[in-house]
Amino acid sequence: MQAQKVQMAAGSVRKLLRRNAHGHVSNLLTKFRPADVAVIIESLAEPERVAVFSILMKRNRDLAAETLNELGTERGLALLAPLNSEEISAVLQELETDDAAEFISALPEATAQEVLERMRVEDSTDVQGLLQYPPETAGRIMTPNAFSLSEDLAVSEAIHALQTAEDLEMVFYLYVVDDRRHLVGVVSLRQLLMVPPSTPLKKIMTTNVISVKTDTDQEEVARQVAHYDLLAIPVTDSENKLLGVITVDDVIDVIKEEATEDIFYMAGVDVHDHVYTPVRGSVRRRLPWLGINLVTALIAASVVAFFEPTIARFSFLAVFLPVVAGMGGNCGTQTLTVMVRGLALGELTWANSRAALAKESLVGITNGLALGFVAGFAAYLWKSNAVLGLVLAGAMIINMFVAGVTGSVIPLLLKKINVDPAIASGIILTTFTDVTGFLSFLGLASLLLHYIPVS
Amino acid sequence: MQAQKVQMAAGSVRKLLRRNAHGHVSNLLTKFRPADVAVIIESLAEPERVAVFSILMKRNRDLAAETLNELGTERGLALLAPLNSEEISAVLQELETDDAAEFISALPEATAQEVLERMRVEDSTDVQGLLQYPPETAGRIMTPNAFSLSEDLAVSEAIHALQTAEDLEMVFYLYVVDDRRHLVGVVSLRQLLMVPPSTPLKKIMTTNVISVKTDTDQEEVARQVAHYDLLAIPVTDSENKLLGVITVDDVIDVIKEEATEDIFYMAGVDVHDHVYTPVRGSVRRRLPWLGINLVTALIAASVVAFFEPTIARFSFLAVFLPVVAGMGGNCGTQTLTVMVRGLALGELTWANSRAALAKESLVGITNGLALGFVAGFAAYLWKSNAVLGLVLAGAMIINMFVAGVTGSVIPLLLKKINVDPAIASGIILTTFTDVTGFLSFLGLASLLLHYIPVS
Repeated sequence: MQAQKVQMAAGSVRKLLRRNAHGHVSNLLTKFRPADVAVIIESLAEPERVAVFSILMKRNRDLAAETLNELGTERGLALLAPLNSEEISAVLQELETDDAAEFISALPEATAQEVLERMRVEDSTDVQGLLQYPPETAGRIMTPNAFSLSEDLAVSEAIHALQTAEDLEMVFYLYVVDDRRHLVGVVSLRQLLMVPPSTPLKKIMTTNVISVKTDTDQEEVARQVAHYDLLAIPVTDSENKLLGVITVDDVIDVIKEEATEDIFYMAGVDVHDHVYTPVRGSVRRRLPWLGINLVTALIAASVVAFFEPTIARFSFLAVFLPVVAGMGGNCGTQTLTVMVRGLALGELTWANSRAALAKESLVGITNGLALGFVAGFAAYLWKSNAVLGLVLAGAMIINMFVAGVTGSVIPLLLKKINVDPAIASGIILTTFTDVTGFLSFLGLASLLLHYIPVS
Repeated sequence: MQAQKVQMAAGSVRKLLRRNAHGHVSNLLTKFRPADVAVIIESLAEPERVAVFSILMKRNRDLAAETLNELGTERGLALLAPLNSEEISAVLQELETDDAAEFISALPEATAQEVLERMRVEDSTDVQGLLQYPPETAGRIMTPNAFSLSEDLAVSEAIHALQTAEDLEMVFYLYVVDDRRHLVGVVSLRQLLMVPPSTPLKKIMTTNVISVKTDTDQEEVARQVAHYDLLAIPVTDSENKLLGVITVDDVIDVIKEEATEDIFYMAGVDVHDHVYTPVRGSVRRRLPWLGINLVTALIAASVVAFFEPTIARFSFLAVFLPVVAGMGGNCGTQTLTVMVRGLALGELTWANSRAALAKESLVGITNGLALGFVAGFAAYLWKSNAVLGLVLAGAMIINMFVAGVTGSVIPLLLKKINVDPAIASGIILTTFTDVTGFLSFLGLASLLLHYIPVS
């Protein structure tokens, strides 16, 4: 129902734009939540988007800012591009600090500087505070100035503070600090309702608070929040002083982003490459990866070239080359995927990595034995050549065993040297399985076919 | 720090078990959160796990139940296996209804029936209520009996109801219903604190409530919660009567599960196949997929077989066969991944699918032109054969264009006929790119090499 309303609204906006009924466009969009306004804007053509956004900028800047945020950095930047730095700073200072920081860090450096200079001093100070932390860390994605109260307050005072505080849309927990702002406890909103108003916070707070440091990787932040089913997690400095908070809605974004990153990296796609990325952007992001693929494919091809005389004599070998290499690749990709995802979900650790390696090698050789004999038998029937069948079976068993081993070792090694295992694993693996496949199949063929009389 | 403590605890548990100090094991584990107890149990050997779990069952059944839940269905079931149906029902009835339902639906049918009969009547009725909804729908994963209040109550009465209600660990919103239990509004806990106690709920509630139906797919539930940044979403029947609620922590699990499903399906891995799955289970789950791969590989091989006489004459062709097919496969996989993930994230819709198809075809042919000429030139230099270079370039351009088209059309078509596009897309795509690659390369070679004198 909601989706239908949104689709219909997009049509109405288009009509109203043609009639230059700017007031009506603004009134119509104000009835929707920012997340839906973002969907409506997305389904318009490029010039219409810019027009609608500039209408919102004039008539409902709050909604413009929230919509921008829902669109995300990449699509949002396209709407900011036609604006001058004054307009950009006006809209960005309506955002939460962490979101404003994300947009500003994506702007060209000169524009970013101008935008920061034109923002309200307190906002630009907050944004610059976040920008000092590296991207994808807790410090960068936190909301600074988390709502916190002294451990000496009573529950009634805490409720009063909550009632008078401004800009507190997403408060789930009260963080309790000592007189030097060290994080010492946490109280849930519901706990406040459950006890007599005179109870001191110190009495009801949980002291064993789960928190992260400013330099904690955002993936680890997400893992902690998901692991402990939290609604928000506080961020502290190295002395345990409370600096900010990360809420569960931001964590959901991180989880989706990290999953997308893993899926994309494994297929050789940049994480900023989406359905709506223009052709030029997609080509620029994918071509280098395919270029590396071409180089490794040519390396593998040179193995085949080495055996050209054998192929010239037994041309049927060419038929099975892609089968051996491909089956090894598929088998290895299965292992690789389980390992890479296991690392991402925290299921795979150094403690159980040896067991995982042993298991995957065994799975590889078992699958190799099963399919090697099937393929070998098929080849024997097809070409009436028993030696060919043996060679194919042997090569597949060798290659699928190697695929199981390399598929599990590569991501572990990459992780050990601090390279994201999703990024380069695939390409290293297929180079391995291609070379091993060609080498074992053509090597065995050279040994056996040349010395045994073939029918 | 927390991770270190957990690792150390695992060591201590192991020592205490050897000394048969069951009381100490229980005391030690009680100091940790269930999520961490799950990690500790996971890092033990199989017999130790069973021993620890049975200690918890005797001395701290609540913790046993919550730990079981943190382990998830698959790993949890291994711990339930040695127990009789009475013990299983005792521990499962400590869980939230939706979690209990998940375990029971995974048990063998006869055991499940026995366990249900031995549970408290109200619990088994609730569980059976959920089990009537299909898996992976809102009805199946909701907590039934959401906390809700009549629209005629005042805020003070609502606060009193909250204070006296039991078992309300995760209340974020008050759902407001009319006298026939129709969902008519929602109030946040914080709103309750902000207004005079005599205010009727009707006055402060938001009437435009985002909700889902019992038959809504869990992936769609997760999308709504993430889209609108909710902490919980109410579930209603077709008449808008409130039946249950799904909280954000369950949604995070769904998001991770669906992302894992996509990643695994694309690599031909079953979603229940993990790092810790035994060899036999992994082989049983992966072998069928590799078997299908083998069949399609042999189909592609038969295309090569058709051109065997050409290969017998020009054996260098065999060297480049895997290059053409592989580059097409890689190029198509990039497109496929962007499309499949775009569908999952809701970025790709029927409305923008034509633009996406046009774009991906263009990206494919652009990359094909760039790499086709590079590869063609490399082949010309390597084999000093200009015709070979032309043939390789032409075949790569054709195949990478076809890869872009099929890589975008396949997931859209599968989605249209209600097949998960992540499942079969990869195998259809590589069959296509293999066949097209072999056909175009060997076809062009037959045409050009046979009729033009080669050096």
